[in-house]
Amino acid sequence: MNKWYIENGDQGDIVLSTRIRLARNIDEYPFPDKLDEKTKTEVCEKIRDIMLAQTAWNFSYINMKDLTKAQVISLAERHLISPDFASSRSGSLIITEDEAISIMLCEEDHIRLQVMMAGLAPKEAFSVADKIDNILSSQLNYAFDERIGYLTQCPTNLGTGMRASVMLHLPALTRCGQIGKLASTVSKLGLVIRGAHGEGTSPKGEIYQLSNQITLGISEEEALDNLQSITLQLVAQERAAAEKLMENPLEEDKIWRALGILKTARILSTDEFMELASLVRLGVRTGKIDYDIKKLNELSYSVQPATINAHAGKDLTANERDIYRAEAVRKAFE
Amino acid sequence: MNKWYIENGDQGDIVLSTRIRLARNIDEYPFPDKLDEKTKTEVCEKIRDIMLAQTAWNFSYINMKDLTKAQVISLAERHLISPDFASSRSGSLIITEDEAISIMLCEEDHIRLQVMMAGLAPKEAFSVADKIDNILSSQLNYAFDERIGYLTQCPTNLGTGMRASVMLHLPALTRCGQIGKLASTVSKLGLVIRGAHGEGTSPKGEIYQLSNQITLGISEEEALDNLQSITLQLVAQERAAAEKLMENPLEEDKIWRALGILKTARILSTDEFMELASLVRLGVRTGKIDYDIKKLNELSYSVQPATINAHAGKDLTANERDIYRAEAVRKAFE
Repeated sequence: MNKWYIENGDQGDIVLSTRIRLARNIDEYPFPDKLDEKTKTEVCEKIRDIMLAQTAWNFSYINMKDLTKAQVISLAERHLISPDFASSRSGSLIITEDEAISIMLCEEDHIRLQVMMAGLAPKEAFSVADKIDNILSSQLNYAFDERIGYLTQCPTNLGTGMRASVMLHLPALTRCGQIGKLASTVSKLGLVIRGAHGEGTSPKGEIYQLSNQITLGISEEEALDNLQSITLQLVAQERAAAEKLMENPLEEDKIWRALGILKTARILSTDEFMELASLVRLGVRTGKIDYDIKKLNELSYSVQPATINAHAGKDLTANERDIYRAEAVRKAFE
Repeated sequence: MNKWYIENGDQGDIVLSTRIRLARNIDEYPFPDKLDEKTKTEVCEKIRDIMLAQTAWNFSYINMKDLTKAQVISLAERHLISPDFASSRSGSLIITEDEAISIMLCEEDHIRLQVMMAGLAPKEAFSVADKIDNILSSQLNYAFDERIGYLTQCPTNLGTGMRASVMLHLPALTRCGQIGKLASTVSKLGLVIRGAHGEGTSPKGEIYQLSNQITLGISEEEALDNLQSITLQLVAQERAAAEKLMENPLEEDKIWRALGILKTARILSTDEFMELASLVRLGVRTGKIDYDIKKLNELSYSVQPATINAHAGKDLTANERDIYRAEAVRKAFE
């Protein structure tokens, strides 16, 4: 079965993915960090039983303790679980085969439901999340306050408990030095833009995450509309900047060389791959390079370090992974 | 008609070419720099008449004054004339269509006969030079001293008047830091090794010229034997060093990336081309890359700056040439 990220959605050349995350808690239990292991298991299994009974999706249930370290980190690399959840090695995960829907159980909250979709699709992704949320809420007693909304462990999630975000590939705006200005603009609109690999990280592969910050006193619909319209504005700006950038032959040259190196290198680090893939993606988007961008999407997931280790079934050294990665990339560009 | 350098001679993966040069003067005339233009022309035409009467070769006669600056520099880039001769814009040149035989008239000496061959072929090249020399000597009165040998303007050429040299591609010995030691060894054996583009230049593309230094008190045969055997020793050392170098995956990676860039770059300077071509040549030689080395030989000549200008029929800017060069290189690697 194809993973969700192999698809190419709306504005898919710039908007790599959309993510909806809902935080929910069960009223009769304290928040997960106050639970002993036995009660955590009880909570997890309660939710497991509801979800595995669904026939509309083919869910798997994974006990985090049963996974190898590489498998756990690989899940985090694919943004299916949070880095914190990965390092805790506790709780469990419910997941569909295409990895579009994943539910962390007993992470920060009892339920962290996530729906991923390719391209720009906040409403579509929310509608799936909402459907699952309705199933859960019909069988569980959610911690909910009439005035505030959903109760969550961290106050920044109170209210809708929803975080909606998109991953944006913004190489042209980055190269024109526009990101700082954009970050300050979107923050005035209740959104935040940051490097795709979390706060404080430099944007690997010139990929950024744009997400809503406000969950209190705003409806889900308003938040989604807001994200949709600001994303479309950023997309338009990135397109214009890319067109201008490509008028410079030196910039076009960089794109072609990146393609040449990806096609031939025998040793390739993750960071270099991300950097070169970003250039090739820009080349494909601006019509310079003829290549199926879906293959780049897939590669961006499959050549991450722990995902390689998980695939190889053993802990390769960084050098061995760099060789493995180069081989996989060459194959994808054959 | 194919140029001589498109051939691939003996040890042709390392020995790019062999050159024999004979310096001769006509007894009844002073050396060229003492001649007025009228007498220079007289000398040139005297030799022209002898050579153009030969039917074994199809010689052309070129008055240096009749060429554009780009054409003159292009001849120097292809090592058909000396840089000094190129800048003087005086004298003339007799040349075959394959550019294997060229005779500078009224350069430093009245006659500077040069024979080029692909690969390691000092005796074969000398035999051609000797044949032409015999024709000239039968119709001219050479400046010759029974005790010393041929008389030449510069005392370093007295005696045989012969300079025999080979162009060597020594990337592995260069990368292992062996060239300094080799230079001191070969100098004790009466030879000199230097960057291919003349004394004091850094070796572009890791190409070196190895030539005999002694012309006095040595026969041509001894000098040629000496060059042949020392060249074969250097070739063996380079092969061993290359094999060792290729055991390092990082070095192999460099080779492949060089190929990738040559195949895709849109802007390519001469120096970068030489550097990348050197790596690809090493890759072909060590069996890593499957490519016809003859095409690299041809490119090394055709993408030099003045040769591009001469081909374009106008003075392109450096930027325009870099684009032209990148295009020609991509085509050759298609």
